[in-house]
Amino acid sequence: MTDKPRKSFGSDNHAGIHPAVIQALTEANTGEAVAYGADSWTERATGELKRLFGTDGEAYLVFNGGGANVLGLGLLLDRHEAVICADSAHINTDECGSPERMLGTKLLPVPAPDGKLTPDLIETRLAGRGDQHFAQAGVVSLTQSTECGTCYSLPELAKIRDFCRANSLRVFMDGARLANAAAHLGCTLADLASHADVLTFGGTKNGAMGVEAVIVMSPEYQANALYLRKQQMQLSSKMRFLAAQFLALLDDDLWLRNATHANAMATRLATGLSDVPGVQIRYPVEADAVFARLDPRHIAELRREWTFHVWDEANSIVRWMTAFDMRESDVDSFVASIASVAGTLS
Amino acid sequence: MTDKPRKSFGSDNHAGIHPAVIQALTEANTGEAVAYGADSWTERATGELKRLFGTDGEAYLVFNGGGANVLGLGLLLDRHEAVICADSAHINTDECGSPERMLGTKLLPVPAPDGKLTPDLIETRLAGRGDQHFAQAGVVSLTQSTECGTCYSLPELAKIRDFCRANSLRVFMDGARLANAAAHLGCTLADLASHADVLTFGGTKNGAMGVEAVIVMSPEYQANALYLRKQQMQLSSKMRFLAAQFLALLDDDLWLRNATHANAMATRLATGLSDVPGVQIRYPVEADAVFARLDPRHIAELRREWTFHVWDEANSIVRWMTAFDMRESDVDSFVASIASVAGTLS
Amino acid sequence: MTDKPRKSFGSDNHAGIHPAVIQALTEANTGEAVAYGADSWTERATGELKRLFGTDGEAYLVFNGGGANVLGLGLLLDRHEAVICADSAHINTDECGSPERMLGTKLLPVPAPDGKLTPDLIETRLAGRGDQHFAQAGVVSLTQSTECGTCYSLPELAKIRDFCRANSLRVFMDGARLANAAAHLGCTLADLASHADVLTFGGTKNGAMGVEAVIVMSPEYQANALYLRKQQMQLSSKMRFLAAQFLALLDDDLWLRNATHANAMATRLATGLSDVPGVQIRYPVEADAVFARLDPRHIAELRREWTFHVWDEANSIVRWMTAFDMRESDVDSFVASIASVAGTLS
Amino acid sequence: MTDKPRKSFGSDNHAGIHPAVIQALTEANTGEAVAYGADSWTERATGELKRLFGTDGEAYLVFNGGGANVLGLGLLLDRHEAVICADSAHINTDECGSPERMLGTKLLPVPAPDGKLTPDLIETRLAGRGDQHFAQAGVVSLTQSTECGTCYSLPELAKIRDFCRANSLRVFMDGARLANAAAHLGCTLADLASHADVLTFGGTKNGAMGVEAVIVMSPEYQANALYLRKQQMQLSSKMRFLAAQFLALLDDDLWLRNATHANAMATRLATGLSDVPGVQIRYPVEADAVFARLDPRHIAELRREWTFHVWDEANSIVRWMTAFDMRESDVDSFVASIASVAGTLS
Repeated sequence: MTDKPRKSFGSDNHAGIHPAVIQALTEANTGEAVAYGADSWTERATGELKRLFGTDGEAYLVFNGGGANVLGLGLLLDRHEAVICADSAHINTDECGSPERMLGTKLLPVPAPDGKLTPDLIETRLAGRGDQHFAQAGVVSLTQSTECGTCYSLPELAKIRDFCRANSLRVFMDGARLANAAAHLGCTLADLASHADVLTFGGTKNGAMGVEAVIVMSPEYQANALYLRKQQMQLSSKMRFLAAQFLALLDDDLWLRNATHANAMATRLATGLSDVPGVQIRYPVEADAVFARLDPRHIAELRREWTFHVWDEANSIVRWMTAFDMRESDVDSFVASIASVAGTLS
Repeated sequence: MTDKPRKSFGSDNHAGIHPAVIQALTEANTGEAVAYGADSWTERATGELKRLFGTDGEAYLVFNGGGANVLGLGLLLDRHEAVICADSAHINTDECGSPERMLGTKLLPVPAPDGKLTPDLIETRLAGRGDQHFAQAGVVSLTQSTECGTCYSLPELAKIRDFCRANSLRVFMDGARLANAAAHLGCTLADLASHADVLTFGGTKNGAMGVEAVIVMSPEYQANALYLRKQQMQLSSKMRFLAAQFLALLDDDLWLRNATHANAMATRLATGLSDVPGVQIRYPVEADAVFARLDPRHIAELRREWTFHVWDEANSIVRWMTAFDMRESDVDSFVASIASVAGTLS
Repeated sequence: MTDKPRKSFGSDNHAGIHPAVIQALTEANTGEAVAYGADSWTERATGELKRLFGTDGEAYLVFNGGGANVLGLGLLLDRHEAVICADSAHINTDECGSPERMLGTKLLPVPAPDGKLTPDLIETRLAGRGDQHFAQAGVVSLTQSTECGTCYSLPELAKIRDFCRANSLRVFMDGARLANAAAHLGCTLADLASHADVLTFGGTKNGAMGVEAVIVMSPEYQANALYLRKQQMQLSSKMRFLAAQFLALLDDDLWLRNATHANAMATRLATGLSDVPGVQIRYPVEADAVFARLDPRHIAELRREWTFHVWDEANSIVRWMTAFDMRESDVDSFVASIASVAGTLS
Repeated sequence: MTDKPRKSFGSDNHAGIHPAVIQALTEANTGEAVAYGADSWTERATGELKRLFGTDGEAYLVFNGGGANVLGLGLLLDRHEAVICADSAHINTDECGSPERMLGTKLLPVPAPDGKLTPDLIETRLAGRGDQHFAQAGVVSLTQSTECGTCYSLPELAKIRDFCRANSLRVFMDGARLANAAAHLGCTLADLASHADVLTFGGTKNGAMGVEAVIVMSPEYQANALYLRKQQMQLSSKMRFLAAQFLALLDDDLWLRNATHANAMATRLATGLSDVPGVQIRYPVEADAVFARLDPRHIAELRREWTFHVWDEANSIVRWMTAFDMRESDVDSFVASIASVAGTLS
């Protein structure tokens, strides 16, 4: 990896690959192996994932987050059903309509100010159940950590899970940043998984080159998973190289160390800005993202040198993402730059 | 890579990653890069691909062959159309119904003894054009090299292309093994591409870890390609690592050297067996596959030690695939083993 | 038809068939006719529809409103696009997710207090155009008259059409109750159609047994309409009996007289209630629907004797629909009943 | 109905509506009724259908045969499955790819010389079960009577049903002409239904204006039928007028009398031609269709005056369909015309 200072706070997938993952890819490249998952790397990686998530179901490796979400939702949806989600959910806003196109399902989004659903919010989309004219919600999709950089607490998850069970709704958890949630909450992956029926576990944003897992918590949902993954073009032929990435992340809890570090960098960033006038932090910083409101002129000035997204142009809100490979000095330079701009221009 | 003798003739994707590809992945891991393809690796790789294919259209990188086929077909299909293909085509037999599920298209398969379509064979599926009751063929899908290890010659391709143009059919070419065809025919990729409207170019079976390209030969077909790729869950976030694989393969024609070697190993295998009684080669060996008929007892005996697929159980036909990393000694050992078994048991 | 007083204000499709339509069905039953639309009734009906809508495109007959909407939207949507609509639109709330399931499209609903979109409201869903991560709006769907019983005026439609053209959006108009809008606005069907690219024209709610037309205003959108209609299971074999229904409705402007009458009954109902305390009319009454807020106990009391829908339980809002076959005495009885209940219980 | 001689042997849907059906429509037109099937006509019609088919499942009314097939298949298919059918099946050849487009399923057609599947033919499409690369057959679709005018006998059906149960395949029966099969076999609808899991029962080709029923033989398959019917745009708002058509057909076994008559006319046609040289009957005449091979010049000559389809142009095979409203004199005129042409030109 480079020694150049990191200038992008644009996304955790602007980061590269953790050295241990590259190393694992190299070591897995030992001549021939049976394709499509019938290899020992895949067996070990999925076995270890199942153990960590505490499931007697199954773990499936796929290429990317969109693929993981479509496969996971598809496992839970009956042939006619719809999905309740926060209006800020990645499946609703950032996947170009993929769930609708690929699954034919309708999304029923709910405005959720901090990205988090509640039983009350879910209930607003349950009108018309049993009436053939209305889209029938079958699945509730949570994102953990959320698109707003917040985390559902375990009690919050338990309330949602109980509400869903009482209402014949299955729980899907988009865990592209599940590691960041576990790191923040100080809980195990099994703790999180106990509140979902199917969830994803992201590797890509946490040091992998590109791999995600779909974890099925109950065998009843996995009967056709292999076929759906293949139909959905998410079956890797040289699967061992997906598995090897997860093996590296799982080894000695590298996934957790990476996430803990990224979270700490976000906290450092938010803390460093706490006294800077003109920077208003929007949400509790509970993962690897900081959302802030700035003067639009400050935003423009900062973007000349730094890379990040304007989240909400109308309200001058920006998103700053940290990552596993960001150094304290990177954060400190950015804080200094923000403070300088806010001071200069305000 | 290992020094162990290669025991699998099961598939070209049982092979590992070419060392130059691993090296390229490592070198691309230089800290941060913008995600989703807006990086310099992707710009160079797609630029080079466009040059090699002689297109003023575009090149799109995707994860795997199924994804490449669905994206490519989707670019060419009108909203109501069907696809004519050989009955042995991968899209018809090996993708679990993915084109039908993901695109909603109907496949119109044609029995093609050696895996190759002809204008006459295509014409058998054109009945009912213009009649609202009949599936309307809009695309002809060729596989080059074919699932039978044969290659369309350039004159054969030209006849099909001319027939298709005269009949308002677009030509899609499944090029998961396009490199092997170019190596066999001694032609350029642009020569092959000039007979298609959209084609794929496989990296995975030819030394990559996992990457394919969809090449669009005319800008008219690419207007919504970026959106379709995203919807179809084939947009890689850390795209540079797909691009880097192609850059390694394109550098100094590694793709061609790999394919030429794999082809040579298949020819060596077939030649070595030419005098072995009881081994009947089924198709001209024009790529990296050898199909042969053996006594079922010989098949069973050989599979105790070697890995390969029984292609057609009813007719005792097996498929032996070579690969870029197979050595002459691997082939010779296999030939000796086959000869020994055929001699012992016949 | 019966002489019994009409007790249902539940829907305009609680009504029966207009006697002239039954008569037309009987008269069309003259032995054999070629199936699937190649008959003289269909030729005359679609010819007359095209003349009335002033189109050099085409008219297609289908079974029902859901079928008309899916066909019409499908004609306008590119393979990857999404649809902007009012959140109260029938396609969003009452079709069980049919557009998503059948077309794979994403709906982008906009809160529209009185059921009507505006350029400003449409613009709220155009963020992210050109960005592969975001659903790309291609079509704006208007309902005329709206689900709230209001009508877009011709200037309002013109503003939307101009905005859409300036933004590369096509305009779809759900005209299940287009007749009611024409009756209210005192304009021709061609006047309405000039603001849309594809629109539907409902027969079912206006005196037919069951038939709707999809009107294409420009030939560019109809190239694959016959195939899409067949694939979408909306091609009637004995098409003459769909056509005959429209011929009856078009004869001597029966469609307009029916709609005018239904509108008048709604106005009579609203006017009759204008002095009743405790009945609050919610929207301008511009078609055949009256929305009102009542005390929940009054609603319950009224529903013992009368049939109608509670539109919004939380806010105690009911919907009362009139129909072509409703008599003034039916309305007056209902007014009296409402007034009595509101008086008794308030 | 007219007294003009019937000149079309093109299709049983070239016929009009049986007078009793028109009468039933008129009688059902008694003012208001609740929409979408919650009316007494629908309750009676579906109740009577369930009784006739001997099911404790459910009956659903839809608009047309394509809609019935898609709904019925959809009820039986798991989310990833494919359908085995005869290559001549209507779903494979005459629905413009509707099952693939609407359900996303793959059809696995089997050449079936007389339109009839057998366990042996079905077994040819079961290769690769359990392998994620192969389309997984879940449903076998039979057509009764077949597209070739033949009927499965009850023992033939029993063998297929037993084979399917032993192989975890569900049985769908396309019964667009089920009445003709029951008439030919002299069995009850329940006898036929006992060999299927879901089947359709056609009204349209047997005297109705346009209605088909989907009969579910076991409650396990109907949990989401109402939602799928709505999503598939097959829910009629004024449902009573679909139900009334079936009530007329079921009254005093009109359905059976109509089918018996149509069958008899086909037999009369075939018998009348048995001695005509140059007319070669192709299949056993067991329903309302006669397939024959004629000299192409005779075909052309006959089509100047009569309407019918050329089924197989390459082999000079025509299809002649009879119908419920065809008179013996119509058939006799046609026989005389054929005999005359064959005599004149041979």
